[in-house]
Amino acid sequence: MKPAPLVGRNSGRNSSTTQTTTVQVGNTTVGGTDLFIVGGPCAVESAAQLEAIANHLGPNRGNGHIQALRGGIYKPRTSPYDFQGMGQDGLSLILNVSQRHQLPFVTEVMAIDQIESLSAHADMLQVGSRNMQNFDLLKALGKVNKPVLLKRGLAATIEEFIMAAEYIASHGNPNIVLCERGIRSFDNYTRNVLDIGAVVALKQLTHLPVIVDPSHAAGRWELVASLSRAAIAAGADGLIVECHPDPDQAISDAQQTLTLEAMAELVESLKPIATAVGRRVAEPQRQLVAA
Amino acid sequence: MKPAPLVGRNSGRNSSTTQTTTVQVGNTTVGGTDLFIVGGPCAVESAAQLEAIANHLGPNRGNGHIQALRGGIYKPRTSPYDFQGMGQDGLSLILNVSQRHQLPFVTEVMAIDQIESLSAHADMLQVGSRNMQNFDLLKALGKVNKPVLLKRGLAATIEEFIMAAEYIASHGNPNIVLCERGIRSFDNYTRNVLDIGAVVALKQLTHLPVIVDPSHAAGRWELVASLSRAAIAAGADGLIVECHPDPDQAISDAQQTLTLEAMAELVESLKPIATAVGRRVAEPQRQLVAA
Amino acid sequence: MKPAPLVGRNSGRNSSTTQTTTVQVGNTTVGGTDLFIVGGPCAVESAAQLEAIANHLGPNRGNGHIQALRGGIYKPRTSPYDFQGMGQDGLSLILNVSQRHQLPFVTEVMAIDQIESLSAHADMLQVGSRNMQNFDLLKALGKVNKPVLLKRGLAATIEEFIMAAEYIASHGNPNIVLCERGIRSFDNYTRNVLDIGAVVALKQLTHLPVIVDPSHAAGRWELVASLSRAAIAAGADGLIVECHPDPDQAISDAQQTLTLEAMAELVESLKPIATAVGRRVAEPQRQLVAA
Amino acid sequence: MKPAPLVGRNSGRNSSTTQTTTVQVGNTTVGGTDLFIVGGPCAVESAAQLEAIANHLGPNRGNGHIQALRGGIYKPRTSPYDFQGMGQDGLSLILNVSQRHQLPFVTEVMAIDQIESLSAHADMLQVGSRNMQNFDLLKALGKVNKPVLLKRGLAATIEEFIMAAEYIASHGNPNIVLCERGIRSFDNYTRNVLDIGAVVALKQLTHLPVIVDPSHAAGRWELVASLSRAAIAAGADGLIVECHPDPDQAISDAQQTLTLEAMAELVESLKPIATAVGRRVAEPQRQLVAA
Repeated sequence: MKPAPLVGRNSGRNSSTTQTTTVQVGNTTVGGTDLFIVGGPCAVESAAQLEAIANHLGPNRGNGHIQALRGGIYKPRTSPYDFQGMGQDGLSLILNVSQRHQLPFVTEVMAIDQIESLSAHADMLQVGSRNMQNFDLLKALGKVNKPVLLKRGLAATIEEFIMAAEYIASHGNPNIVLCERGIRSFDNYTRNVLDIGAVVALKQLTHLPVIVDPSHAAGRWELVASLSRAAIAAGADGLIVECHPDPDQAISDAQQTLTLEAMAELVESLKPIATAVGRRVAEPQRQLVAA
Repeated sequence: MKPAPLVGRNSGRNSSTTQTTTVQVGNTTVGGTDLFIVGGPCAVESAAQLEAIANHLGPNRGNGHIQALRGGIYKPRTSPYDFQGMGQDGLSLILNVSQRHQLPFVTEVMAIDQIESLSAHADMLQVGSRNMQNFDLLKALGKVNKPVLLKRGLAATIEEFIMAAEYIASHGNPNIVLCERGIRSFDNYTRNVLDIGAVVALKQLTHLPVIVDPSHAAGRWELVASLSRAAIAAGADGLIVECHPDPDQAISDAQQTLTLEAMAELVESLKPIATAVGRRVAEPQRQLVAA
Repeated sequence: MKPAPLVGRNSGRNSSTTQTTTVQVGNTTVGGTDLFIVGGPCAVESAAQLEAIANHLGPNRGNGHIQALRGGIYKPRTSPYDFQGMGQDGLSLILNVSQRHQLPFVTEVMAIDQIESLSAHADMLQVGSRNMQNFDLLKALGKVNKPVLLKRGLAATIEEFIMAAEYIASHGNPNIVLCERGIRSFDNYTRNVLDIGAVVALKQLTHLPVIVDPSHAAGRWELVASLSRAAIAAGADGLIVECHPDPDQAISDAQQTLTLEAMAELVESLKPIATAVGRRVAEPQRQLVAA
Repeated sequence: MKPAPLVGRNSGRNSSTTQTTTVQVGNTTVGGTDLFIVGGPCAVESAAQLEAIANHLGPNRGNGHIQALRGGIYKPRTSPYDFQGMGQDGLSLILNVSQRHQLPFVTEVMAIDQIESLSAHADMLQVGSRNMQNFDLLKALGKVNKPVLLKRGLAATIEEFIMAAEYIASHGNPNIVLCERGIRSFDNYTRNVLDIGAVVALKQLTHLPVIVDPSHAAGRWELVASLSRAAIAAGADGLIVECHPDPDQAISDAQQTLTLEAMAELVESLKPIATAVGRRVAEPQRQLVAA
């Protein structure tokens, strides 16, 4: 495997340590002791949808809360005839909920011309699996002063994944969080195969934080909690999980989406696992929710 | 599998026929009786390199000639530190050779901002495997009046591949040629696995021309000729093959690149196969080569 | 890749040549100029079924005939509750048809204790994909004086496949024919992916005959003829194809089974392809069919 | 997915419960609260090798001990020229150490004719990945009164794996433990991909205990501890891990083998994870070691 001069371990600023680079996402730090738990819908659908999530899982909830909100406003879909996301209208909705609840949000950027408006408002920009080797997008994100959540391609090797991060870093942006989200395989009981070994390998080969998306990996909500616990036990720095006030009504990914109650329970169940591996589920910092 | 309203067979303009849509690429027709054989280097490197290829395989050669030239000027590479292509300088080189030899050329477009200059000069724009689901690029190519060579993603399903073509077609450009170029698998003797069954399936499920890239599929030059013959026997409408005046000196893909002599021999060997399946290797139309 | 001392090319008896070892199967030679076309049902079901096939495709048919009959009497099935084959009763049926029509037959051996009776009667013993690395079975077949048709495992590397043949050869039996029959992959439009590159590689790396099973590779009858032509164009020494007098009534593999008419047409269509690559579809030797 | 009448959940003896069937292996119970940790070498090599392991990790050790010993005496190897195991001599060695240390042992059975002597002495019979669909072997093990450790095939679907267990159960032996050991995939940084989602799915779809082999999954010792913790967090009932007094001298699998010190540390590190998911690492029951 070719060495990655900037994001590789034993290279660059973190040479000869086992430390993880920390990445600041809004008011939250990724890669330190506290886990980074992101929750939210596949796609932003309405203000009520996001408000329910923030109320249930945001910083004012006693337990089971999340550190950031996810929600797609530009959606990469296999068919051009499927719902492609709410676009700028969705951005206003998620920005409003994010600000009132003091809950940072991450959303996917699919094209260079979306970077300007998204980076002005979002706390973290996600590169989806299909764009992991969209090198011009990666280069453009290297010039942005926002953290990037880089999802692994469906059939990307570990080396290709690391080198995709190196594209961003070598163009000037060191604030990268890697996300393992399942790879394509021959069985179709699960949607993809969570490559838990890759999580461990990425932590050893790079100094970047690594989080796991168990929802897309499994494609079945009933596997998500167990996979989340496995990810934290393996050393992941966090999770990004699909949840929705009413999964059966979700426009996309209904099958893999947790209810808000299940999401809160999942977060609670992570506490002893986190402790066992020297990590912590952060205590919520209650916030004043603006009207 | 979801139906593809525009590129699917039994739909759109070619309903109830087994006909293939023909796509005009420069002075050549793809999808008719004549096979469409594209040859050239992985990357444009120099005028001498392209001139040698055009002299050896262009329309003035008696036998073993090609219908179009390939050559990357923007190169998607796993590492940001590898050669990324000659860019606009390369475009001038390939355009010059193409025009003097009356040999159309195809080159890869990696980003929306390259479309304008490439579509002004190239005869066909290639979307590489890594960008097969770069939907914003596909939509932009839907608005261009140039044929698109769409390569299958490394782990794209047949449905995803067809739907990627549908993105281009539904945005206004019906001139699409599909290219099977090998999929990722577990064995590493070959670089990828040529999914010859997908070639047959794509011909049955769509009315688009389908060509095969045996070079990237095999990753070994010694397999390329046999795979090419298999592709034509399976019903492919053409081939895109890497060849170079001096493969060992090629900047990239040396291992899978044919010599010009081997390329010419390969084309000759296709003639009886083509005849066996009702196709033809076109006779060269001698051209006056400008100085 | 480790060298294979006995079955590898540039080793053993066939060093420094490009010749293929020929294997005698009943009255037929595999690996010479003539292609070896095997047809028949997934499972032996009845005398009438086999008689219809032999009448339609056997040596007394003018055209479109086969060189050997296939038919499982012991069937490996995913579920223990599915039909497991007719066993010894099936052996009598296929032996009778084989002898009267002078049509050699190949059938699968699943266990060491079946070798004795099968090798007494069958012309060729097949090792199925699931048993490709059942090393004790391979060793036992190394001691038998019958040719072995070794099918590639669903996820066997080319090296593992060659070394499985080496197990048989190193235990004393050099009469081995390799069979590529599709590998597992991520797409499920086709049942498996025909690894046509492996066919070419196996011919280069070993001196054994290599045949192709397009039926299991595709899992869809409508792809079988095109894949068969591709296989011969790629250099395969033959084919093993599932066909049945009434595919819709076949106990297993109905979806991938050709009618007898389609099978005969397929064989005819191979003639010009075979010629193009220096091979031949053998002319039938009319036989006297015993009552 | 077809229902599995005997091993499937919501079927047979464990219908409408979430309980796991317990399987007795020597003096140890698999599938209850206590985890089942198996350790030992890839292959039995010498008395000293096994004695060192039993001394270091057996029941007389204060902490970090294992519940059973693994060690192959018949070894399935890709090449017929590689070490094939010590055979019966190895059986005597492992039996002696097992008895003196009161440490049950599991060893692989590759062929029906090995069942009699192995089942007379071993506490558990392992079916290796290559034999997961060696149906005659499975049927024969269905008639044996010993627990079976069934390893998943390299490219077996979850359904095929469950149905392989059903072969054993339907022939009379309900004492089956499933083992996920990594599946084949496209990346070669790790030897295989640990399908952690399959572990969760198998626990939901069957009532059988499920353990994980992180050594073969990873193929790299430095990933084994993290994968082990992930497996327990995901709900696995135990682990089977390769360890050796001197991994660099191991005849096979050196790269993926832990030292005995690393193995003991790994077991200790599982304790808080086990507690977090309602399980326990058993306290050692000190035994009198016979001379």
